[in-house]
Amino acid sequence: MRTSIATVCLSGTLDEKLAAASAAGFDGVEIFEPDLVASPLSPEHIRARAEELGLTLDLYQPFRDFEGVGPELLEQNLRRAAAKFALMNRLGIQTMLLCSNVASARSGDEQLAAAQLRQLGDLAQRFGVRVAYEALAWGRFVDGYETAARIVRIADHPAIGLCLDSFHILSKGHSPEAIETIPAEKIFFVQMADAPLLTMDVLSWSRHHRVFPGEGGFDLGRFMAHLIRTGYDGPVSLEIFNDTFRQTDPVATAIDGRRSLRWLEHEAAAALGRGAGGRAARMPTAPLPRVEPPTDVNYVELRTTELPDLRRLLGQLGFRSHGSHRTKTVELWSQGAARVVLGPPDSDRARPTVAGLGFSVRDPATAVSRAEELFAPAVPRQEGSGDEPLVGVGTPDGSEVFFGADAGDEPRWVGEFGHPPDGAADLIERVDHINLAQPWQHFDAAVLFFLSVLDLRAQPTVEVAAPVGLVRSQVLRSDDGVVRIALNLVPSGAADDAILPQHIAFATGDVLALARAARDRGFRPLDIPANYYDDIEARHLIEPELLAELRELNVMYDRDESGEFLHFYTHPIGTVFLEVVERRHGYAGYGAVNAPVRLAAQYQHRLATREEARA
Amino acid sequence: MRTSIATVCLSGTLDEKLAAASAAGFDGVEIFEPDLVASPLSPEHIRARAEELGLTLDLYQPFRDFEGVGPELLEQNLRRAAAKFALMNRLGIQTMLLCSNVASARSGDEQLAAAQLRQLGDLAQRFGVRVAYEALAWGRFVDGYETAARIVRIADHPAIGLCLDSFHILSKGHSPEAIETIPAEKIFFVQMADAPLLTMDVLSWSRHHRVFPGEGGFDLGRFMAHLIRTGYDGPVSLEIFNDTFRQTDPVATAIDGRRSLRWLEHEAAAALGRGAGGRAARMPTAPLPRVEPPTDVNYVELRTTELPDLRRLLGQLGFRSHGSHRTKTVELWSQGAARVVLGPPDSDRARPTVAGLGFSVRDPATAVSRAEELFAPAVPRQEGSGDEPLVGVGTPDGSEVFFGADAGDEPRWVGEFGHPPDGAADLIERVDHINLAQPWQHFDAAVLFFLSVLDLRAQPTVEVAAPVGLVRSQVLRSDDGVVRIALNLVPSGAADDAILPQHIAFATGDVLALARAARDRGFRPLDIPANYYDDIEARHLIEPELLAELRELNVMYDRDESGEFLHFYTHPIGTVFLEVVERRHGYAGYGAVNAPVRLAAQYQHRLATREEARA
Repeated sequence: MRTSIATVCLSGTLDEKLAAASAAGFDGVEIFEPDLVASPLSPEHIRARAEELGLTLDLYQPFRDFEGVGPELLEQNLRRAAAKFALMNRLGIQTMLLCSNVASARSGDEQLAAAQLRQLGDLAQRFGVRVAYEALAWGRFVDGYETAARIVRIADHPAIGLCLDSFHILSKGHSPEAIETIPAEKIFFVQMADAPLLTMDVLSWSRHHRVFPGEGGFDLGRFMAHLIRTGYDGPVSLEIFNDTFRQTDPVATAIDGRRSLRWLEHEAAAALGRGAGGRAARMPTAPLPRVEPPTDVNYVELRTTELPDLRRLLGQLGFRSHGSHRTKTVELWSQGAARVVLGPPDSDRARPTVAGLGFSVRDPATAVSRAEELFAPAVPRQEGSGDEPLVGVGTPDGSEVFFGADAGDEPRWVGEFGHPPDGAADLIERVDHINLAQPWQHFDAAVLFFLSVLDLRAQPTVEVAAPVGLVRSQVLRSDDGVVRIALNLVPSGAADDAILPQHIAFATGDVLALARAARDRGFRPLDIPANYYDDIEARHLIEPELLAELRELNVMYDRDESGEFLHFYTHPIGTVFLEVVERRHGYAGYGAVNAPVRLAAQYQHRLATREEARA
Repeated sequence: MRTSIATVCLSGTLDEKLAAASAAGFDGVEIFEPDLVASPLSPEHIRARAEELGLTLDLYQPFRDFEGVGPELLEQNLRRAAAKFALMNRLGIQTMLLCSNVASARSGDEQLAAAQLRQLGDLAQRFGVRVAYEALAWGRFVDGYETAARIVRIADHPAIGLCLDSFHILSKGHSPEAIETIPAEKIFFVQMADAPLLTMDVLSWSRHHRVFPGEGGFDLGRFMAHLIRTGYDGPVSLEIFNDTFRQTDPVATAIDGRRSLRWLEHEAAAALGRGAGGRAARMPTAPLPRVEPPTDVNYVELRTTELPDLRRLLGQLGFRSHGSHRTKTVELWSQGAARVVLGPPDSDRARPTVAGLGFSVRDPATAVSRAEELFAPAVPRQEGSGDEPLVGVGTPDGSEVFFGADAGDEPRWVGEFGHPPDGAADLIERVDHINLAQPWQHFDAAVLFFLSVLDLRAQPTVEVAAPVGLVRSQVLRSDDGVVRIALNLVPSGAADDAILPQHIAFATGDVLALARAARDRGFRPLDIPANYYDDIEARHLIEPELLAELRELNVMYDRDESGEFLHFYTHPIGTVFLEVVERRHGYAGYGAVNAPVRLAAQYQHRLATREEARA
């Protein structure tokens, strides 16, 4: 599959955009006209620069408001087109995108439109170029790809074909199935865009909220499968208008985009596999290595300057120290199958506090090679001789994901630390979920990263009110629930990452017993206000004894259709805190209804701590 | 008019919210339940705190999903309501907001809903409280205020009345006229919210995009006029769910809100004045002092460390120096009626580079007292003896607006500076428009501030693509076009205010002559790429001689239905740059189509300057 990206997806100058697309390994780019117009580089210079960077210039876009007009305006439009075709000759671009008329069309007559496209085709041929006609979702008369395909068929001109854009098709709820009826040689270009499923006017939706394939709610695998069945072998290009991408590092965005196309191929292969009865088709690219989902959260690595506080806290929760690693400056704490690797921050502080996540998989080498195919940078683990080989990759926020071999009860690398003292019964059983705050710059990329690398499913997003703004939260989980990662989008105004700490939630079968045991070890949980308990008393029929115990232990409560959720929080230590949760009878959520109270309590705690520091 | 604000409008803890509402001079607040639930303060403590701050607690909200349910759920709902009524007794709150049922209603039978409300009314009476029933725009069966009013009429219970929320009514396109048919004593509460006119699902619109009255697109003056005609004299309260307000300083937000209600009264008075034939009504509050729009932009004050560069630039554009003020460390430059006051930054750097704007008005004292009634802080001008009195107020971004007496050709304060040398013909005639970058924290507040204080009209917003993100731009202008202020919303990712400089545009009758004269004085304009001129040649039929001259002088070009726009830009100096514009035949815009090219050229210039600095 030839990959391409429109320059409008990326921030910066045209030169910076080309460099970013090249760095991310795209085969080509679409030149978005406003980027060219604003560039001090001449068309010849841009052409040379792209060649130097190993990029083809696949499309010049957009040309607007051409067809369905009266004769006088047609004359002007052809003059305008000739100027752009001449420019394309200077750039060495073969294909121009023509959007269906939005502003100046006076007629929806398909014969008229086709005749005018034929004139445009004649002109294009004189310049040795061709025109890809695209139905905009908000076109005046032409707003569906089937109409555009009909007009192109009537025009019947070798220089007039179609551009298919997944957003314009799926945003209108049009079925992509009829794509298979279009002759491959008439599909001149394909643009792939995803988007969250919003209910708003399609123009604003398109201009602000497009995301890379896999980051939104469209079924693009199916779309792509229909396309593959036509035999189309031209570029598959990303045209993503996104307010965030316009502001953020273009190389990071381009890598995110490149990953999305690799993931899309994988999804398309799956859709082709499902599509029995469809036309026979061959995936143009090898599928991703097949990886079974992780069998376990192997460990969580925390890097912090507040080691003594975190050690004390882990001890209070019943974790036992295995001591230090035999060669590295990290230590291991465990309880049940929950393992916390603890160490000081990296010297360059490149990783966030939750600096690493380890997963047990059946075949670590394959898991890593799949991640690398998804453009995740490999991270070498510094190994002492005889250390268990762990292989890993970097994530968009700088943290690392490692894959270790599933070794039954205990990973072999645990033996690289000392032995823990024998202790009381392990009330904590394992990691329940991992809550990672993501800066707004990386949020969508992080969703796609974890989704594709760990093969997780995205749950519906929820929004949680914090005293400093709304937090958008997106849970990704494996089908069996072993891996659950909640990504939280930090409000853009939050100047300081302590405002939205990361956290690790541990699962227990008896949160009340654990809370009591922790209290006996000196633990002080996050204070939950009395008003909260009055409110849950008003909302739920709840045993008075249980309610009294929740109040006393600062344990929070939620219910869903199937069961109950009891959980408590520690105070934040630096930019991280811990949670202990008990899921009764298959409760499936994360206590989102309690999150605002927790966020307010943490905010209150910060205020108090600051005031103490001042006093 | 009694003013109130819902705690959900403001960021921080409940305590911080109460303090902010009090600081802004509100009479009362609505307690938003999640704020109470998350607060460590007991209800009694909250009650005492509000009393201490001089605030009444006007409403407890929201209570949800009560009516239209089966008998078993009704029982539970009454139990839930009793708990909340008991809580209201502890808080000393008389009125509870009940939203129309969204989730649990099984029947839309108005008789059933009324009968259940009557039971709720009986219960409320036992606690000495009352219930204000509100139709949510997305209610399951009840989604219009006329339906809610009918149910309340059928219920016919002294403790059951209505809450009217302007958003829920106007977002659905419902006419507010029927408000006048509701008996005043049945209107228990009124919530006022504005919103930009978006086309999206009403729930998301309501939860994220509400703004204070005057900051959006609803005709709230008319809404309010209908309300006043009923004789309603309860609180008028702000319930604004807004993603930005949740993140920003609660005191600044509360002042913005308080201003919006004062402005709303003014707008309501105007609507009452227009509404001949309506029921007679008396404005409950004195209207704002009537101010005629400014007759002139009197001066622009720039504060910068780059004084030599700015002096050279002004000289190149044909400005002449009047020398320094006789007592202050500022100097004056003028050309035609364009005046620039130039000085070093304030010692506390509290003001942005465009630190002050002066306007000529017929009655400065009235203009200032009006601004102060709109909660603009007064700013004393340090006057030497004999100095012309100028009176002014602070704006949301810290800059200042001053009003001077209209004195015909030249303001009297000009005499406080020296005499300029005689010079060539004045090609620049006056200030055309002022372009103020606003941090996202203050954007909506700035719109309302300038709108209300200078009595301007908001033009439709436009969005302009910069290499670092989309810039939203909102022009405010006086009807006669004398005052034109463009407010630009800086992308939230912009770490540095040089990314979106402010600028002053001067009007000339001959921009080409001016550009040539400036060039002869050594001026180098912002470089506009050759690609730009190729593009306007393709888009417009334009005289080759004119095009050649535009190219040569780096002058940009635009057209609208009535005329042409020719303009050029200076390089930024620190965080400000200048523009010279010529409007031919009544061109009414601001060259927004050229803004992306200008922003890219400025970005390119910054990159080059940085590279030079590095080399």
